[in-house]
Amino acid sequence: MSTSDNLILRAFPRGRIDDTTFETVSEAVPAPAAGEVTVANRLVSIDPTMRVWLDDERTYMERLTPGQVMRAIAIGEVEASCAPELPVGTRVLGLTGCRTRATVAASSLQALPDIGPLPLEAHFGLLGHIGMTAWCGLTEIGQLKAGETLVVSAAAGAVGSLAVQVGKLLGCRVIGIAGGRDNVRYLRDTLGIDDAIDYRSEDVSARLGALCPSGIDVYFDNVGGAILEAALEHMALFGRIVACGMISAYNREAVAAPRNLLNIVTRRLRMEGFVILDPRHDGAAAYRALLEWAAAGRIQYRVHAFDGLEHIPEAINTLFDGSHHGKVVVRVG
Amino acid sequence: MSTSDNLILRAFPRGRIDDTTFETVSEAVPAPAAGEVTVANRLVSIDPTMRVWLDDERTYMERLTPGQVMRAIAIGEVEASCAPELPVGTRVLGLTGCRTRATVAASSLQALPDIGPLPLEAHFGLLGHIGMTAWCGLTEIGQLKAGETLVVSAAAGAVGSLAVQVGKLLGCRVIGIAGGRDNVRYLRDTLGIDDAIDYRSEDVSARLGALCPSGIDVYFDNVGGAILEAALEHMALFGRIVACGMISAYNREAVAAPRNLLNIVTRRLRMEGFVILDPRHDGAAAYRALLEWAAAGRIQYRVHAFDGLEHIPEAINTLFDGSHHGKVVVRVG
Repeated sequence: MSTSDNLILRAFPRGRIDDTTFETVSEAVPAPAAGEVTVANRLVSIDPTMRVWLDDERTYMERLTPGQVMRAIAIGEVEASCAPELPVGTRVLGLTGCRTRATVAASSLQALPDIGPLPLEAHFGLLGHIGMTAWCGLTEIGQLKAGETLVVSAAAGAVGSLAVQVGKLLGCRVIGIAGGRDNVRYLRDTLGIDDAIDYRSEDVSARLGALCPSGIDVYFDNVGGAILEAALEHMALFGRIVACGMISAYNREAVAAPRNLLNIVTRRLRMEGFVILDPRHDGAAAYRALLEWAAAGRIQYRVHAFDGLEHIPEAINTLFDGSHHGKVVVRVG
Repeated sequence: MSTSDNLILRAFPRGRIDDTTFETVSEAVPAPAAGEVTVANRLVSIDPTMRVWLDDERTYMERLTPGQVMRAIAIGEVEASCAPELPVGTRVLGLTGCRTRATVAASSLQALPDIGPLPLEAHFGLLGHIGMTAWCGLTEIGQLKAGETLVVSAAAGAVGSLAVQVGKLLGCRVIGIAGGRDNVRYLRDTLGIDDAIDYRSEDVSARLGALCPSGIDVYFDNVGGAILEAALEHMALFGRIVACGMISAYNREAVAAPRNLLNIVTRRLRMEGFVILDPRHDGAAAYRALLEWAAAGRIQYRVHAFDGLEHIPEAINTLFDGSHHGKVVVRVG
């Protein structure tokens, strides 16, 4: 019988994840029963939403309980199979969690298509849930149209850096908000968006006012809080706020609530949340558009990789202090 | 030349309207030029949005300036006409303001249809902008469907008391939130909605949880602030928040911002603002539905009337302390 290193939840964190949150335990992995496969994980996707899953009150999926393996999206390879549709060697993606090996129902996994020369990480970024989040958020929820002004927060992050590029490719004026000079330079010079604001050193509201003289048509929000408040000050009439995430609220220590929600009424705004795992979203459309742009070299993304299961807690925390660059992944096999 | 008593804006209020906000001045009214009429006002509509018009930063219409007549929707009768489409004696509605008489372009007025035995006030309430706000807010913005759970704040107010009745007539479970025992009793016993919560003496969030076990599908919000926060705690997945008004923010002293906007993401909520004066709303559909229900005696509304232009400031303030009952109007002629 094979074994797996598992990251086990010990205690729900208050604020940042710390040494008391998880424990790594080596456990036996059962052989697959009929309809099951054993997957050897290769890459674990590190997403801000993991911090919401670690919230005993506010999670939107089945509640985790201490003693369980931490939930995560991961990519692996089938190494034992009792499911003819997923033979040994198939590359699969699923919610297999923070562990090196898992035996799960084949129906809970998705076989990965061949993406030619693109690296395995692209299934998490460009061509996976991150790309879908950017594309579906902008087009389905935000109803973004060519010629409009788009503002994206956490614009140097995994979703944000794709959202700003999709905005440009759709013919929009695009302003990104990010933390630190390096990120701002990356947005301006490497991704070539119209301008970028450093929320650490600049007055976000004043800069948005100067950069968006006819207002923001779509604000793609990953952070909530004070930056949402600044965006609300500069929304155009009938503007849309795509509520993709609210990183500022996940660690729960200080929930800065925007004091100007009245603008939602007076400017006839629509603010709408979404979770990309819902079946209502057209992932196939996102995949087609992003693969075509990627193949043509018109879209790029960065991967920030950690090595080893034991670095997952640290990797999650980088999402909240802005020290990561692009899509965070942890290699586990 | 005739004269008019005019309520003139002297100084933008901070917080509640007080003695320094307005002054009543008698002024000459010019005779109508070609295309104009002189209207003798009878009834002035008192609406929460007037407090937003009195905000020098946040208004959504042309900014008022001190020295101008206070803006208001009013009903009057044409008493001199240089516009063949509005002969003397025509009953008209328009933004003629807080004054007893005004000479304005005929094109800015709407001739009132005959509503049989219903009183003149019905043009403001049931069959006017108030009824349209309730109907279009619920059906167009909220996409309310039979069988859903509807919660309405300021439910004993002009818009709220129509919204709860429209919700019942559309086949929904309806919970109202209002201030004081009399209002709660009116909602429960006279309007016959499913239940009502007194925000002054009850824990709104706890009561919403008990009364809406499968969550709130549509929250029709007139108040914002702490009650919006309570509703956000109990929204169902894919719920809609109709942002009709945010009375709690209008007087600006204490803007209580909801601290749980993260629920918009995790529960995939849509929050959308609207202003009924926008041409996108189907007023004719509202009018047809409400007139039919009113004629059949299936819908009712209360009018809280003040007499005399000088009572307008006091009438506006009653909107914010919950001491009014139903639609507030001031008779001025």
